[in-house]
Amino acid sequence: MKLNRTSPIPLYAQIKEILLERIQKGEWEPGKCIPTEAELCESFGVSRITLRSALGELVAEGYLERISGRGTFVTEPHVNQMLKQLTSFTEDTERRGQRPGGIVLKLRTIQANTEMAKKLNIPEEEKIILLRRLRLTDNEPMAVETAYLPTRYFPGLEEEELGGRSLYQLMREKYGLVPTRAIQQITAVPCPSTEAGLLGIAKKSPVLHIYRTTFDQSECVIEEVESYYRGDKYIFQAELAVEH
Amino acid sequence: MKLNRTSPIPLYAQIKEILLERIQKGEWEPGKCIPTEAELCESFGVSRITLRSALGELVAEGYLERISGRGTFVTEPHVNQMLKQLTSFTEDTERRGQRPGGIVLKLRTIQANTEMAKKLNIPEEEKIILLRRLRLTDNEPMAVETAYLPTRYFPGLEEEELGGRSLYQLMREKYGLVPTRAIQQITAVPCPSTEAGLLGIAKKSPVLHIYRTTFDQSECVIEEVESYYRGDKYIFQAELAVEH
Repeated sequence: MKLNRTSPIPLYAQIKEILLERIQKGEWEPGKCIPTEAELCESFGVSRITLRSALGELVAEGYLERISGRGTFVTEPHVNQMLKQLTSFTEDTERRGQRPGGIVLKLRTIQANTEMAKKLNIPEEEKIILLRRLRLTDNEPMAVETAYLPTRYFPGLEEEELGGRSLYQLMREKYGLVPTRAIQQITAVPCPSTEAGLLGIAKKSPVLHIYRTTFDQSECVIEEVESYYRGDKYIFQAELAVEH
Repeated sequence: MKLNRTSPIPLYAQIKEILLERIQKGEWEPGKCIPTEAELCESFGVSRITLRSALGELVAEGYLERISGRGTFVTEPHVNQMLKQLTSFTEDTERRGQRPGGIVLKLRTIQANTEMAKKLNIPEEEKIILLRRLRLTDNEPMAVETAYLPTRYFPGLEEEELGGRSLYQLMREKYGLVPTRAIQQITAVPCPSTEAGLLGIAKKSPVLHIYRTTFDQSECVIEEVESYYRGDKYIFQAELAVEH
């Protein structure tokens, strides 16, 4: 509870670090209610305004959650996703010991417009499959994913049950195409309203906007995916190294 | 200008793709004003509401910018940052042919608190250097970076001019420590107000929140960095591959 009042680090930032440590060390467990604002103000010896700045940032960053009329709760930890191996959402989630799930929002055959044809390296107006899914972890919405796949590589894909199933596994097992390499672009955007509704978060909440281009073993583009991942739930982790 | 009115893709999304293509192909150049809403509505044959949904998402994603009383302009393209090589902001920016810059916001010696001591693998209360910088590209604010460095490795660092200079270059040349490897965690958060003010963006705009732990050639932790990168300006790109 010791704050350094002569430090150049503002008090609210010191409090934020102390509270974060409690959460990360598990002293405050996920799903549990934290002490009231009055109790925390007293134990730190700070004003409500200072305390609220600290709590506000922890809420914004997804560590705490305010439930109106009930208090402030520790959220389930972020999912830490490695940016190295090419794996499917289903496989990743299972590897973490959680239950993957999915809801198919759209599954249709459409014609590739100029841009999509170029990205998928197929002639314009060729048929492609549009697969839009809400991805769940332990029944909680995590991401909205829209994949575009050339029908020429995946005939009959529209007939498959794709809700809670790994698309990559199906590609390998039914079509003999192995997702081998992908280029992924990540940025932060305000969540569009449709996706916010599906993810159960406030409109314009920060989300990770991801574009992925996936190649098979012959370096053919087999999918273009656009996803929105919840910023309050997902961390992407990369390892960087100097060139050799 | 052809929209497919029987497609399952909503009209606004089709318009968004068409406009994005013009921007990406350079038909609409950075810094140029795009046609008025009335002109675009007429040429697409859609309502203002539909057109505004498309424009709104392009503004939110940083491709367009509204300047009140003047119109809607094409923004400078996002910076595309590879998540692979460990490079400094200065080096990255120069490699892209842009001019890096920096403003030192804070440069002080403080004592490591429990959490920071643990992260830097040093005893608690040992001296560390806090270096907070606003990073610029062609004079535009791009990121706010706060680095914590053990004083034991970098004696005298507080005396250096660090504004527009590569810290990694200084580490190598003055201290013989080579930043060799880093672990980087990326998430999307609403920009805190202080950082939003520095970056010249609206409070709570989505930003990429990045933690980096950097190791030298002997696997010692030489810095812990927390950064906020503008979501409307930065894309992080990773290449993923299957395990071998």
